[in-house]
This record gives sequence, C-alpha cells and structure tokens, in this order.
Amino acid sequence: MPPSRAMSTSRIEVRVRYAETDRMGRAHHTHHLVWCEAGRTAWLEERGVRYADLEEEGVFLPVSRVSVEYRRPAGYDDRVEVETRLSGVKSRTVSFAYALRRVHDGALVATAETELICVDPEGRVRSLPAGLRELLSGEAGEGAG
Amino acid sequence: MPPSRAMSTSRIEVRVRYAETDRMGRAHHTHHLVWCEAGRTAWLEERGVRYADLEEEGVFLPVSRVSVEYRRPAGYDDRVEVETRLSGVKSRTVSFAYALRRVHDGALVATAETELICVDPEGRVRSLPAGLRELLSGEAGEGAG
Amino acid sequence: MPPSRAMSTSRIEVRVRYAETDRMGRAHHTHHLVWCEAGRTAWLEERGVRYADLEEEGVFLPVSRVSVEYRRPAGYDDRVEVETRLSGVKSRTVSFAYALRRVHDGALVATAETELICVDPEGRVRSLPAGLRELLSGEAGEGAG
Amino acid sequence: MPPSRAMSTSRIEVRVRYAETDRMGRAHHTHHLVWCEAGRTAWLEERGVRYADLEEEGVFLPVSRVSVEYRRPAGYDDRVEVETRLSGVKSRTVSFAYALRRVHDGALVATAETELICVDPEGRVRSLPAGLRELLSGEAGEGAG
Repeated sequence: MPPSRAMSTSRIEVRVRYAETDRMGRAHHTHHLVWCEAGRTAWLEERGVRYADLEEEGVFLPVSRVSVEYRRPAGYDDRVEVETRLSGVKSRTVSFAYALRRVHDGALVATAETELICVDPEGRVRSLPAGLRELLSGEAGEGAG
Repeated sequence: MPPSRAMSTSRIEVRVRYAETDRMGRAHHTHHLVWCEAGRTAWLEERGVRYADLEEEGVFLPVSRVSVEYRRPAGYDDRVEVETRLSGVKSRTVSFAYALRRVHDGALVATAETELICVDPEGRVRSLPAGLRELLSGEAGEGAG
Repeated sequence: MPPSRAMSTSRIEVRVRYAETDRMGRAHHTHHLVWCEAGRTAWLEERGVRYADLEEEGVFLPVSRVSVEYRRPAGYDDRVEVETRLSGVKSRTVSFAYALRRVHDGALVATAETELICVDPEGRVRSLPAGLRELLSGEAGEGAG
Repeated sequence: MPPSRAMSTSRIEVRVRYAETDRMGRAHHTHHLVWCEAGRTAWLEERGVRYADLEEEGVFLPVSRVSVEYRRPAGYDDRVEVETRLSGVKSRTVSFAYALRRVHDGALVATAETELICVDPEGRVRSLPAGLRELLSGEAGEGAG
C-alpha cells in the first residue's frame, strides 16, 4: 500500500561542503553518517518529536551500530537527497535505513542502516519511553502494511 | 600460531579530541571511522607501503563498505588503542577489521570492519597492483596460519 | 545606497547538526568556519561563479587568513543565518566578512573575516583571473557606494 | 632569560589524517584549530591541569576569539608540530598563541592565536578560578621574564 510507505519515510537534501571533501575529491565516507543523522532528526521532527526535547527529558539515543555501502562518490557542491525510513523497533532500540542519491543524476550514492540504543543520562540502557515507542511502532506497522 | 597473527596486526593510540565529542559528552560515532583510517595507514606503513605513494602512482582505495558496532563510549581525552587486522583480500578489494579499546580500563569501545575498493584516478574499479596484492595475500596467509 | 549593499551580500541558512556539537552542548567553534565557507560558495554562485569550475580551470582559492569573534553559542538544531559580504579585493587575494545569527531570536552568534589567496595547481601564488577580479571589483565598488 | 620562555611553551605532534584533507589535497583550514585545541589541552596537562576536571568543577572555557594565518599547506600524513604558548591572562579570559610547523622540513604551516572566556555551566561569564588564574599568571610572568 504506497501511502503507508510514504508515511514512514522522510527526505532531506544536503549539499556537499568543501570541508567534507577529501584529497580524492569526493565526500569523505564519514560524512554520509552525518547526513543520515540529519535525516533521522528530520524524520522524527516531521512526526512531532524533537530529538533535543528527548534529551532534555533524559532520553538519549546514541548510535549502537552502523553499516554503510558506498556505491558512487558524492562530489563538492553536489546536492544529495537523504531518504530516511524506519526499519525496526524493539523495546530498547530503534533502527533506520537510508538511501542517499545525487540529485543531478539520481545515482545511488550509498545505502546505510543505523541502530540507536536508548540510554539514560548516566549511559545505562533503558526502554524507549512509552510515547515514543508507540509512535515508532505505529509507523513501523504502517510501513510494513 | 600466535606470532603469525601478531604479524598481520598493528596498534596505534589516539586521544579523543575535544572537537570529536558531541553534546552527549562522548566521541561522536563518526570519529571511530577516522581512527580506523589512521589505523590502516599505520598498518600499511609498518609493512613498507605509504598509502600516499599508492595515490601518486594512480592507485586509490576509497571505502566501499563499513560496519561498526559501538560498545562503550570514549570520552574527551581518553586514550583509545586501535588494533587493525587484515581481514580479507580479493582481486579488487581489501578488508580490515578493528578493535578499539579504552587504554585506562581496557574496555572495548567498538569493533569495526571496512572494505576498500581499488580504483584508478578516474574512479574506475581496477585490480589491486600485483605488488600490493602479493604483500596483502602473504599477510592474510600468515594471519590465517 | 541600500540597494548596492544588498547586491554584495548573500544569505544562507544552516542548521546545527548533532555531529557539530561538542560536550559543552554548543556547536564547536570550527564549524562556524565551515558555514562561512558554504556562505561564500553561495555568494559566488549567486553571481554566476561556480567555485568548482574555477578549480577545474586551475584556479584555487585556499584560505590564507581567518579571524572569528564568537558572541553567543549556537546549539543543536538551531537555525543559523550566515550573511556573507565581500570585504576586499586585491590582485591576488579576496576577503569576505560574515555575520552569523540565530534565526529563532536574532542573536549574533559570531562575526568572521576570511582572506583567500589565489594559487595555481602547484600551489604557487598567482593573480586572480581577470574575469573574476572584474566581477569582484564591481561588487566591491557597489558595496562601498 | 631562555629557560623561562621554555617553561610557558608546550609541543605536541599531530599527523595529518586522510579525513582532514580536502579536495585541494591539503589539510582543510579548520583542522589547524583542532590541533591548537589539542596543543592547549597538553599545555595545561603539563602544568597539572586536566581541562576535563575544570569542566567537572563547573568551569568552562569556550573559545571567544580566533585568528589564524596560513603560510604553507600541510598534506596527508605530514607530521605537524604544534607549539603552544600562553600569550595573555585577564580576569575572565586567557589567550594562547601557536606556531605550527611541518616536521619533515621545518616549514611554518600557520601561526594562530585563540582567546578563551571563562563561563559557568549556564554559560554566564565568570572570573577564572583563583587557582587557575594564579598558575596562568605565574607562567605569564615567567614567559615575559
């Protein structure tokens, strides 16, 4: 059902900064993860959750796992679309998947997946807050529908 | 055979810079990949290969795949040991595995694996140069011994 | 003459990324310079100059001097407006001045100035290309009007 | 009196990481400030002050002003010596000056100066703690001797 998939997906566009390139002339591979991070901030925000607010309430979501597959380089000044999709929710973790595409030719730059783990201000693993988990499960259900 | 495993492993130590921390108070997850990159530069150098020289000869090794599992945070000023190990060689790719440990308590910070793909100055995939491949295969053989 | 001043000024907006914050909870002071760099890329682009094209023609403009005064912190997710203004043109250098403001309250985050020096592909100092110099001098004249 | 100047100076060595280079093939100009930051962490540490401890006591020293003059590029894998020198102490600010040199040829890469301002956990400007100010003033006096 196409509409449901759209609901669990967000899109942002970043532009490759000069500082993000390396001597090979392409965006250094670490920046793709920064763009994914911006993508999930936007994904949450579009669903009414400001990640900054979560932290103020003592809920932190550090990254516990990442994997990235790099397909095509992104060069200086290229516009890159970051598509973020919820890919999994458990009691204490949430996962997002990403597709990064160059805007000028649609080429797939990279695919990625990140898992975030919920911790308290002391860094102890805890359950996702009920409200957040409900929201995420709802989105996951629709995405899967 | 322990000596052979030691041969295919290198160790460097980095110190977490203030600029590498994020508002959660820990090293942002992208920097672990920068430290791994420094680890494989050292691994190669210890075996007589300056990566900068490879690039001058038109051999580039961009990252084609990464995966990281984050276990414990690394904080500002922490010393982190990066252990780099060759984990695979194919005709056009080479893979390294990493273990990152906090020096003060030996805690495992992260494990990672990266695959590099050989390309020419125009970005076209090519075979690893014969000399480099021979060196890597020798190390892989010993590491597996 | 207000219109002329407007002509030599550009505005972009950046959003503070999580990766740009440090353990003090604010954007680390180095990122302001990255935003200024994005600001001058946009300033040039609005006047028909793609900096990437200049480099392809063998004209490089590395930064030769920076100064920044930090007034107020920029926090995670804050929108920051970067106002870029041409501040000086010589035969071999061009300078830009910047004002960074938080969008939500208009507070001045920082002011900065950068000088760029024209070099050839071998890094030797050279004169600005005639066309670029003419454009910049025109803007400088209007800005001063 | 030469010995006194030596007392107020520290030296560290950094190695330019691949991730720190840009498409011009040199270390991007923002990283010099990261190296300076590592330099002053070491300067303090050599005098018995762990900056991390200061923050735990509620004393923060964000950067309030920087200026850098870039002379020569630093390339991938270059070793760069960062010489840090205390250059000024006031009731609420402390300044350091830096000289960055390539190790392989002694060339001056950059000179820089940074001013730090003392703030409390809420970001309000406050006086430097008495103990720290005494230490700094002592070093400043000797440096000037």
